[in-house]
Amino acid sequence: MTLSWTQAAADGAARAGVLHTAHGDVETPVFMPVGTAGTVKAMTADAVRSTGAKLILGNTYHLMLRPGAERVARLGGLHRMMDWPGPILTDSGGFQVMSLASLRKMDKDGVTFRSHIDGTAHRLTPERSIEIQHLLDATITMAFDECTPFPATLEQARSSMELSMRWAGRSRAAFTPRDGYGLFGIVQGSVFADLRAASADALTAIGFEGYAIGGLAVGEGQAAMFEVLDYTLPRLPADRPRYLMGVGTPDDLIGSVQRGVDMFDCVMPTRAGRTARAYTSQGVFNMRNARFADDARPLDPACACPACSRHSRAYLHHLFRCEEMLGPMLLTWHNIQYYQDLMRGLRAAIGEGRLDAHAAATRAAWQRGEEAT
Amino acid sequence: MTLSWTQAAADGAARAGVLHTAHGDVETPVFMPVGTAGTVKAMTADAVRSTGAKLILGNTYHLMLRPGAERVARLGGLHRMMDWPGPILTDSGGFQVMSLASLRKMDKDGVTFRSHIDGTAHRLTPERSIEIQHLLDATITMAFDECTPFPATLEQARSSMELSMRWAGRSRAAFTPRDGYGLFGIVQGSVFADLRAASADALTAIGFEGYAIGGLAVGEGQAAMFEVLDYTLPRLPADRPRYLMGVGTPDDLIGSVQRGVDMFDCVMPTRAGRTARAYTSQGVFNMRNARFADDARPLDPACACPACSRHSRAYLHHLFRCEEMLGPMLLTWHNIQYYQDLMRGLRAAIGEGRLDAHAAATRAAWQRGEEAT
Repeated sequence: MTLSWTQAAADGAARAGVLHTAHGDVETPVFMPVGTAGTVKAMTADAVRSTGAKLILGNTYHLMLRPGAERVARLGGLHRMMDWPGPILTDSGGFQVMSLASLRKMDKDGVTFRSHIDGTAHRLTPERSIEIQHLLDATITMAFDECTPFPATLEQARSSMELSMRWAGRSRAAFTPRDGYGLFGIVQGSVFADLRAASADALTAIGFEGYAIGGLAVGEGQAAMFEVLDYTLPRLPADRPRYLMGVGTPDDLIGSVQRGVDMFDCVMPTRAGRTARAYTSQGVFNMRNARFADDARPLDPACACPACSRHSRAYLHHLFRCEEMLGPMLLTWHNIQYYQDLMRGLRAAIGEGRLDAHAAATRAAWQRGEEAT
Repeated sequence: MTLSWTQAAADGAARAGVLHTAHGDVETPVFMPVGTAGTVKAMTADAVRSTGAKLILGNTYHLMLRPGAERVARLGGLHRMMDWPGPILTDSGGFQVMSLASLRKMDKDGVTFRSHIDGTAHRLTPERSIEIQHLLDATITMAFDECTPFPATLEQARSSMELSMRWAGRSRAAFTPRDGYGLFGIVQGSVFADLRAASADALTAIGFEGYAIGGLAVGEGQAAMFEVLDYTLPRLPADRPRYLMGVGTPDDLIGSVQRGVDMFDCVMPTRAGRTARAYTSQGVFNMRNARFADDARPLDPACACPACSRHSRAYLHHLFRCEEMLGPMLLTWHNIQYYQDLMRGLRAAIGEGRLDAHAAATRAAWQRGEEAT
């Protein structure tokens, strides 16, 4: 039986449930830390696990270039290589080809491009993307699509979406069903309701184990993104997980969960951790700020991660000031812990039918900031 | 009662024993990971502890500049700031002033210099160095000395050593005895036996809780260093710990333990870990080497650290090739684990009277390299 999702509770449009996979169960709504090139940057796999994260993401584009999909397969797959026996979702490579590779040449069958690392030539098609994700042993494989740039005209968005829908069918055909594994389709259509509806219908007709919303968080703004969710999500099969790709800030996650999204990934907490930005129950801090130099308090009194339970804000400030690697290590750990705690709180609130109140209280605490302590 | 050392076993000139400190007992011979600016680079305190390390080193020069000794004291001391309740030894700052600071001006009372970071002016005297180490809450304080440059003429070495001996007396006078804390004197005298003897006698006359050998591993070579140990160590009180500063390679550690050294510190395992060099039971590997790209074996089959027990050489190679932070994190962890395991093996061998055979077997395994597996 392929990967499945069972709903456990609902609160308005929000859903709580469990994703059943070959590599273990995952409670949703879930945030997936991004393990770009086979590592969640600046964290050991044990550290990632300690935050409660169950499902992580790997990038097909990065992994196909280094160390190479066939090599990962020879090493026993991505789970074994990176010490992550739990489930892994891989993207299709399309997004990074568009954002990172050079000399891209699209055709109806796929895209030819040069590596941003060494200029070597590569090609991705729906069939090759699915094959690579199979070689990586991805628990969840993403269909190969084109992430429509923003802004796009209606005609550009339509043509791009229709290409992605043809590729979705080819991805489905290329995917080898295995117990507890699954393939997700990706809804495109930019900010055009008719296109999103047509895309959702086309994917549903093909049939996937889950449905992603792509082409968002690319500059359209939170209000436009939420609007797309509002008209797109109800059109998707209610018994399948819904994944909002590349999103987002804690506030984005709350608003999207309230609208019915089950899965998220974003580099934000890891990238922020490397650049001294801390997500906390009291809002966002820049740990380089001199006001922390003598601040003996924990970064976030509500957090049990090592950065918060063992150290002071002053120490974190000191580490970033000295450019010590432990600064990014501890702050990445904290940010991933914060995101996991945030999702845990949302899941509990959905289960108890108090999501809106919980969301409002969480946002109010960010606003109050440190005065709250 | 001040910090003390009790001997548990001897094997030739080598000794095994226990250092009793305010922050816990430490078995010797011991290797101290270097926690330069309040962090063992690229490791959490938990990771350092997991290797079995009990005693770490902090650098007075780095900590006085950032975050500042008075600030560390306000934050509860170095133990609390860096989450290391165990014993900490701090150096006196003299060595880094000579190797890092600019516009140094020596006088008979101390040294005035500019920070290598921001050019601000600072001054270290024996009294200020001891005060800083007190503010840091160092378990073991080092006397303020001048590390004699190498090579030095007999007259240069004599004059430098005599200055250090006067400063040793002033360091002793400035040190506040506390239960389980101690002050170590530092033998200087370059590679001149008469000067080393005079320095050892001068320090013994003052009286310290331990004795360090300074001014070695500065370019004289292993043979000259061992020769200095051979004629200096017998001159020191047998009931006090002996610390060889800034040393060294695994082979240096073995040879020095065989000559009667009890304590070591060196940046080598941590620095090597950041530059892809691995110390293993099969010798030294450069993990950037392409021959590891498909090597699914553990880095060191004899090691239980996360790099060795969870991952392959191919993965470590991949991480360094991609400049992923996890590469330095895992390899530093491994190198510190290797150094701790090496010292554990030496302690056990001394206890069982088989040090020379153990040393020979360890060196032979490095020579055999991977053929051994």
